[in-house]
Amino acid sequence: MIDYQAILNTINSQAATSSDRGDVASYIPELSKIDKNKFGIHLINAEKLEFSSGDFQEVFSIQSISKVLSLSLAFSLIGDELWSRVDVEPSGDPFNHLSLLELENGIPRNPLINAGAIVVADVLLSNLKNPKEDFLNYVRKITNDTSINFDLTITDSEKKTGFRNIAAANLLKSYNNLQNDVDTVLDFYFHQCAIQMNCQQLTKAFFMFMNGGKCMQEQTYLTTSQIKRINALMLTCGFYDEAGEFAFEVGLPGKSGVGGGIVALLPNKFCVATWSPGLNKKGNSKLGMEALEKLTTATGQSIF
Amino acid sequence: MIDYQAILNTINSQAATSSDRGDVASYIPELSKIDKNKFGIHLINAEKLEFSSGDFQEVFSIQSISKVLSLSLAFSLIGDELWSRVDVEPSGDPFNHLSLLELENGIPRNPLINAGAIVVADVLLSNLKNPKEDFLNYVRKITNDTSINFDLTITDSEKKTGFRNIAAANLLKSYNNLQNDVDTVLDFYFHQCAIQMNCQQLTKAFFMFMNGGKCMQEQTYLTTSQIKRINALMLTCGFYDEAGEFAFEVGLPGKSGVGGGIVALLPNKFCVATWSPGLNKKGNSKLGMEALEKLTTATGQSIF
Amino acid sequence: MIDYQAILNTINSQAATSSDRGDVASYIPELSKIDKNKFGIHLINAEKLEFSSGDFQEVFSIQSISKVLSLSLAFSLIGDELWSRVDVEPSGDPFNHLSLLELENGIPRNPLINAGAIVVADVLLSNLKNPKEDFLNYVRKITNDTSINFDLTITDSEKKTGFRNIAAANLLKSYNNLQNDVDTVLDFYFHQCAIQMNCQQLTKAFFMFMNGGKCMQEQTYLTTSQIKRINALMLTCGFYDEAGEFAFEVGLPGKSGVGGGIVALLPNKFCVATWSPGLNKKGNSKLGMEALEKLTTATGQSIF
Amino acid sequence: MIDYQAILNTINSQAATSSDRGDVASYIPELSKIDKNKFGIHLINAEKLEFSSGDFQEVFSIQSISKVLSLSLAFSLIGDELWSRVDVEPSGDPFNHLSLLELENGIPRNPLINAGAIVVADVLLSNLKNPKEDFLNYVRKITNDTSINFDLTITDSEKKTGFRNIAAANLLKSYNNLQNDVDTVLDFYFHQCAIQMNCQQLTKAFFMFMNGGKCMQEQTYLTTSQIKRINALMLTCGFYDEAGEFAFEVGLPGKSGVGGGIVALLPNKFCVATWSPGLNKKGNSKLGMEALEKLTTATGQSIF
Repeated sequence: MIDYQAILNTINSQAATSSDRGDVASYIPELSKIDKNKFGIHLINAEKLEFSSGDFQEVFSIQSISKVLSLSLAFSLIGDELWSRVDVEPSGDPFNHLSLLELENGIPRNPLINAGAIVVADVLLSNLKNPKEDFLNYVRKITNDTSINFDLTITDSEKKTGFRNIAAANLLKSYNNLQNDVDTVLDFYFHQCAIQMNCQQLTKAFFMFMNGGKCMQEQTYLTTSQIKRINALMLTCGFYDEAGEFAFEVGLPGKSGVGGGIVALLPNKFCVATWSPGLNKKGNSKLGMEALEKLTTATGQSIF
Repeated sequence: MIDYQAILNTINSQAATSSDRGDVASYIPELSKIDKNKFGIHLINAEKLEFSSGDFQEVFSIQSISKVLSLSLAFSLIGDELWSRVDVEPSGDPFNHLSLLELENGIPRNPLINAGAIVVADVLLSNLKNPKEDFLNYVRKITNDTSINFDLTITDSEKKTGFRNIAAANLLKSYNNLQNDVDTVLDFYFHQCAIQMNCQQLTKAFFMFMNGGKCMQEQTYLTTSQIKRINALMLTCGFYDEAGEFAFEVGLPGKSGVGGGIVALLPNKFCVATWSPGLNKKGNSKLGMEALEKLTTATGQSIF
Repeated sequence: MIDYQAILNTINSQAATSSDRGDVASYIPELSKIDKNKFGIHLINAEKLEFSSGDFQEVFSIQSISKVLSLSLAFSLIGDELWSRVDVEPSGDPFNHLSLLELENGIPRNPLINAGAIVVADVLLSNLKNPKEDFLNYVRKITNDTSINFDLTITDSEKKTGFRNIAAANLLKSYNNLQNDVDTVLDFYFHQCAIQMNCQQLTKAFFMFMNGGKCMQEQTYLTTSQIKRINALMLTCGFYDEAGEFAFEVGLPGKSGVGGGIVALLPNKFCVATWSPGLNKKGNSKLGMEALEKLTTATGQSIF
Repeated sequence: MIDYQAILNTINSQAATSSDRGDVASYIPELSKIDKNKFGIHLINAEKLEFSSGDFQEVFSIQSISKVLSLSLAFSLIGDELWSRVDVEPSGDPFNHLSLLELENGIPRNPLINAGAIVVADVLLSNLKNPKEDFLNYVRKITNDTSINFDLTITDSEKKTGFRNIAAANLLKSYNNLQNDVDTVLDFYFHQCAIQMNCQQLTKAFFMFMNGGKCMQEQTYLTTSQIKRINALMLTCGFYDEAGEFAFEVGLPGKSGVGGGIVALLPNKFCVATWSPGLNKKGNSKLGMEALEKLTTATGQSIF
């Protein structure tokens, strides 16, 4: 049997001595204040045993990781209709580029780039009564943790400086691919991205993607077919224009955020989350990427 | 001597019987209400003699034609500094595409595409005390006509539906190429584009570009070198991705607007304005383009 | 236990009655002569049991499927050095577009698009004594079948009409990313793509990718880490700009060719090949794609 | 009256002391051997008076300048039919990029970028009996100089290293926009570009573009309407992605070549040629560009 705890301990020790930790995201002012020396990792296996090391209980801004959660809620609400408004192909482009959106007449490449996630936010707004509350409750329920919340200082920081996202939303609106007001959609989107969670909460939230759609409390949120599709999207599109590299080096479906978090999973085996605020040049957590490479090398486990 | 009046009469008669008049711009709701059967033309020569035919005294929304006027005011205010914030190359792309802006790190291709004109608007905001009033007064002065005004219903219409311009402004802001608030810049820009003028007023406003920088009242606004540069920009960039076609077929510096107006000029010879609301597929007035082709063919005059 | 034979029989029956079979590739004249009514499928599981239906023993031109075989030989010869000359990211673009090559200074997006496979061919030419013979022998050995051969009429057909590939090779040469003569590289590449195999031979050739690097005869050709990487590349890049769709609908690493063949595999479980010459709009076998969707749906097996 | 001779003398003196002379083109090996210290200028006015300074009688490879001559011959042979195979818009892209060709389905942006000139070469091949001889004779006739010839060492040098042009021609062929064999078209094209001329010969060859279609010997080769169109193309497309800059700074129709030559003209006034082998970053002669700026500033003459 694999000794996950020993592996996580080794990873954490190596992370502690790493001299090149990348750069903390600067485009959201609030994020730039985070201490770069943090590192945490948490793993939960299919038997619900937990393993962890480092700062795994410290909350951080999950940012783009939230796109998988909003996607899963939207997919459960409207099913395959979703794919008429957003495609499922890798973008082959940095995460914030609007060029493809113009070439492809306002249909975002996939739901995990910003433009695609903004369309998903619009879907939630059209299908939920109290969108922000309902989405937060969804995240709390699948995680079984009512302490999860928005970090409103991050929301405000993004509202003031999220010019690229405002540009993306307006471009989508010009193509009639938003049903709600641009401001309403962005307010929701900036809240969604500003959810705070720690590594342990993230592995629990993503447990259902490893477990065929059933969360830790054995409640079913998505069909196995839907779960398979979301996992496929995470694998092909979860890491901006480093998705191929991640599939190549790590070989797990996953999603990263500019807050420095990464979640990844091996279907029916385990779900793991890492956090380290320093990012590499592609915008993914530098130590987090390295940690997951070490984990799959040490365990010999991947989807391939 | 060329009989301009006879030529304009012929052009107007032919326009009256044209069955294919293009389509009125629909993306600004207010513009879509204009009667497609309108056609006017007005020409003023270097000796200040005037010739005209059709609806040359009916005002319309000058839209993008205003970009030449804002450019000339900004150029007179800050000189060649302007070119550190906007380039002078043809875009080779439809007027509303943001792709190039991303490839070129937020420096618009030229001041006559929307993104470039938004940067010029930002320059005016930073250099004028009462920007909207001062700009309007500038236009009135060079035209010697205090009746010129903004059409505020058009301004409001754009504010509600100008999603692509809002996207462009936010993208520019993300590259730090706007000094003022996005909303302030767009408010100015939507006013500027909503100026109403008729063909006669337009030829007078553009008289100085044909006359080495001196307006009808012999006041000098720009140096001959600056005038030469603005004329070069109009020739290479004044007609979106149909600039080459216009240079090729007509051979005059000029500028069109989605309101159906076109102004063009032959240095030291004449300045001409046409108006017909139906647009061709590239967004330029269909009958206006044809009228100017006929004019340069009939007179044998062009810059080439 | 899964009754593969019953599933293949059903798939074959359904294929037989399919009215929309796509279009046979026309850009290689020789390929356009193939009978569109053909359909074959062959599956081999980890225990080396074989299941099949339809025209699984009829040979066809494997075309782009050969890219995985040339990649695996090149990877075994020079290891990770390969990645300095070709990237591992999805292209997000149709398989024959050269645009990205220019944007990225001659480094192809991945080894499974044409430009990337041409670089891989160049690597083989620099590292094999008798490149064409040695490559053919490699394919014969991993398949344990000496009857496999090049179809030289296809090679000739491509040499005369493969203008895009000639363009790609010359562009690569202009960026110094080919060590050998353009003609030599293309001669090899057109031979490689013109290998003829049937579905049964393909599943045997690809057995090692499902089996951690060991072929049917238990000889090891690649490390488990290398196999994992090739499988990741097949999943993210194996289906041109339909890679995301395939991962999403089917969820298996695989590779298609314009000859109408597709190979796919589930690590440690099975390897499957289909053949039907009619292609969908993205250039992948129409019935083949549908067959693999049905297979993974019926068995409930995928990597996700 | 303007003292052209004094102005040319000053320009030549200033050029002699210039410390930053750009870099000689390296992509054609033969061109890289040229002495960077050369500078010549020759001007002929509408009255056929000649003015010159420096190395104006030393021959060099005219390269892309030949595109205007092949265009004028093709245009006189097939007229407006030409525009179904090549467009007339500025490219907004470096001269060797193939990306736009793909976006626009094999119709080059204009006849003065490489891809467009290759299409023009194909037109000449289809319409001339002895294409290379006939074209050379055409150039000799309009220049009234039988000493003009191909430099075959340059032709050979290009054939061995002109990978981007080979790529462009094959891409055009793949879109069915070449009627002749790729090799035949390129052989013609590499000859055409390898014509050797000096500044004096160039001003004579281009005299007809300044003189409404009539050459020095008063023979008419093109209509005034055709001349106007070619001049418009030179102005909007004659300087790669620096066309706007040249129109802006100089304000004359013209064409440059990587051999360091530039020809420019003011309709009905003068035609001027400069030569200096060092190029700026956009591929245009550095001292040549500066010389023409000085000329138009000193004379106050331009089309604008």
